[in-house]
Amino acid sequence: MKIPKKVNICECWARDGIQGHPQIIPTEKKIEIINRMIDVGFKRIEVTSFSHPKLVPQFADCLDVLKGINRKNGDVAFIAIVPNEKALDRLLDASEKGYGVHEITAIISASEDHLLANLEMTFAEVMPGLANIVKRARKNGLDVIGCIGTSFGCPLAGDVPIEKLIELTDWYLQQGATSIMLGDTTGEANPRQVRTVYRRMRELFPTVDFIGHFHDTRGMGLANTFAALEEGVVFHDCSIGGMGGQPATRRPKYHKGYTGNACTEDMLGMMTEMGIDTGLDIHRVLELARDIETVCGGNLRGQVTRSRPVRHRSKSVLTLEGLHVGRELPAALVSAGRRMSAEPMDPEAIKEWIVRDALEKNWPLPERMKINTGALETKGELDRKTVLVTTLSVLNKEGAKACLNVLSQKSNGDVYLDGTVELEF
Amino acid sequence: MKIPKKVNICECWARDGIQGHPQIIPTEKKIEIINRMIDVGFKRIEVTSFSHPKLVPQFADCLDVLKGINRKNGDVAFIAIVPNEKALDRLLDASEKGYGVHEITAIISASEDHLLANLEMTFAEVMPGLANIVKRARKNGLDVIGCIGTSFGCPLAGDVPIEKLIELTDWYLQQGATSIMLGDTTGEANPRQVRTVYRRMRELFPTVDFIGHFHDTRGMGLANTFAALEEGVVFHDCSIGGMGGQPATRRPKYHKGYTGNACTEDMLGMMTEMGIDTGLDIHRVLELARDIETVCGGNLRGQVTRSRPVRHRSKSVLTLEGLHVGRELPAALVSAGRRMSAEPMDPEAIKEWIVRDALEKNWPLPERMKINTGALETKGELDRKTVLVTTLSVLNKEGAKACLNVLSQKSNGDVYLDGTVELEF
Repeated sequence: MKIPKKVNICECWARDGIQGHPQIIPTEKKIEIINRMIDVGFKRIEVTSFSHPKLVPQFADCLDVLKGINRKNGDVAFIAIVPNEKALDRLLDASEKGYGVHEITAIISASEDHLLANLEMTFAEVMPGLANIVKRARKNGLDVIGCIGTSFGCPLAGDVPIEKLIELTDWYLQQGATSIMLGDTTGEANPRQVRTVYRRMRELFPTVDFIGHFHDTRGMGLANTFAALEEGVVFHDCSIGGMGGQPATRRPKYHKGYTGNACTEDMLGMMTEMGIDTGLDIHRVLELARDIETVCGGNLRGQVTRSRPVRHRSKSVLTLEGLHVGRELPAALVSAGRRMSAEPMDPEAIKEWIVRDALEKNWPLPERMKINTGALETKGELDRKTVLVTTLSVLNKEGAKACLNVLSQKSNGDVYLDGTVELEF
Repeated sequence: MKIPKKVNICECWARDGIQGHPQIIPTEKKIEIINRMIDVGFKRIEVTSFSHPKLVPQFADCLDVLKGINRKNGDVAFIAIVPNEKALDRLLDASEKGYGVHEITAIISASEDHLLANLEMTFAEVMPGLANIVKRARKNGLDVIGCIGTSFGCPLAGDVPIEKLIELTDWYLQQGATSIMLGDTTGEANPRQVRTVYRRMRELFPTVDFIGHFHDTRGMGLANTFAALEEGVVFHDCSIGGMGGQPATRRPKYHKGYTGNACTEDMLGMMTEMGIDTGLDIHRVLELARDIETVCGGNLRGQVTRSRPVRHRSKSVLTLEGLHVGRELPAALVSAGRRMSAEPMDPEAIKEWIVRDALEKNWPLPERMKINTGALETKGELDRKTVLVTTLSVLNKEGAKACLNVLSQKSNGDVYLDGTVELEF
């Protein structure tokens, strides 16, 4: 195990995520979402594609998106797909005018059948133009991701030999590529294979930045990410809501379209639980994910978006800042029996004790914090057997005070406490 | 890496899968599906639960299910949940009458908060009865799975110390349990933790059969299964369609219900791709999964059910038996340029060549097999640049012949070949 302490996540929703989406996302929505991604803390964002608008109408607005996104934050890398030399011309023109990107993704497939189906071109026909793209982009100061599609298998050709990945990686590096993406384009990878492939590639190319790019077509997106992490891969692609996949630019659709990217929220959930520093706060990413669900018209594939992150008690004491307005705290349980075996308590003290106990499931509490339970109503009776499941959510904050909604129910569903409390810091 | 060569899958749909399902599945449907599972080749099947019908109405028919299932196949282990001593009485009575099970699952949680919320009982209150269940079941010749719920974290209490798992495993073994299930009841496990926990447990209890039981609540079901596999775990639980989770027997629902089991189809897909012998044919499991989707009223969570297994060329030559009626073969691509650079071909020869090439993407073909293309219609022209994506499905078989539907399209979507072919073996 040599799991990286820190990883670099690339959020691909604005390109890989939406390229196959049946609706065109309005340009201003794309810009708004990309700017939210920047605010939330993503440091690598795939912002658009320079694919031909006739083939992929979703990206007809690529220049407008580039004009609209917030460039104040100097440490965010914007990335765009550049599928051909004409696309590079358009991008370099935008760069000159001040709204370019920092990195481009150049694309080839490890399977010639896949190239033939998508571009009607052989390796021999594709590579000269691709070499020009890499070289010209580098000359113009851009980093270049050398993407090798269908690295782990091709839906048309079947198995892909690792020798082809080695050959193409070598070739990309000779042209000047600054990193290599092994694309699991249509989700054929399995974690045993991912381990084997990355172990070999990192032995052969120890100084190269490899990018893990998995699709969840067969449900193995996170299993493959885990295997790649254990092989030391620090760059990982994902898309909010697990959206994404190869667009239906070519018919017949040979892969049936079930090709969502590995899901950002769930990947972050896993990495956070594994103690890996992603530089991102999962709660803020989940808020963004829910907003993107609204834009895309329904629940997406993020599991953590519904189930919420795993409960852990924070190591640091609760602060007012920790109580983000609108945040619902995970349900906490308090057992009356544990407390009521001591001397009887007055009803006000019971209310305070329940709220304090429920909060303490999430944080150690600051010593001086006061809990005002005046607006909290008691219903029914407690006995020693009673177990209360208590939910709290942050209603508002003012000055040094936070107001929380409280609902405390017995495990049979009866409400015991209902109302609000005020925490004074 | 010490990934097992062979694993034992337990299919949990008929218990864990449906226990929280909003509709009661008709008894005859349950029986029909369990019998299909036996036919398909599952050797471990969780068939029902003896939970109180008032708490879990889904299992009010547990005795009828046990009476209905096919017991001819002696090597299948039937498993039932036995939550309390009264339940054991009912089961032992059924056993005497000839319709019992081979194994029972006894249940405790690693988190006392979880016990309190679900049973309103502490460890001290639960354990004496549980000890009786294990001992009495063993005395009556039954195997006992000692299930430890919330082994990887509790939605109410948060972190669960590994010491508790060790203590409970030790205790279960003393009572006579024949295997230990570490239940990730509400999906808090992450693969790094799974590796750590299973490594420690297998060091401490090297001869014990541990059962991996993960829920996909946060999308980590397969990643956790992979980690458990790499730690040598050979018993794995899963449910068709990723259905399942703790039922809403207690309110308030503190985990929001997003607790599907690791999905059978996707787990099998992963294991099959990893070269692990599961004793199951994924194509037959997928047919069953689609039928279960019909019963449950809609698409379930299996990804492979839609995307289908990864394409590999078989190592053994195509046989008539390999062409299962109704089976759609993965789309295959043939490139006209590769062939047409030789001398011109007559139209009948072109048809045969396309079908042969598409079939060869899936199997080596038997030398004597004849392809009759009389019922295959050609539309349009081919040129050297043309790439054809060809789909084949098996229409029917008679004697030594199989009839296949053929649709061969150019990559722009134009149909080139349409109709049927006859293969003569």
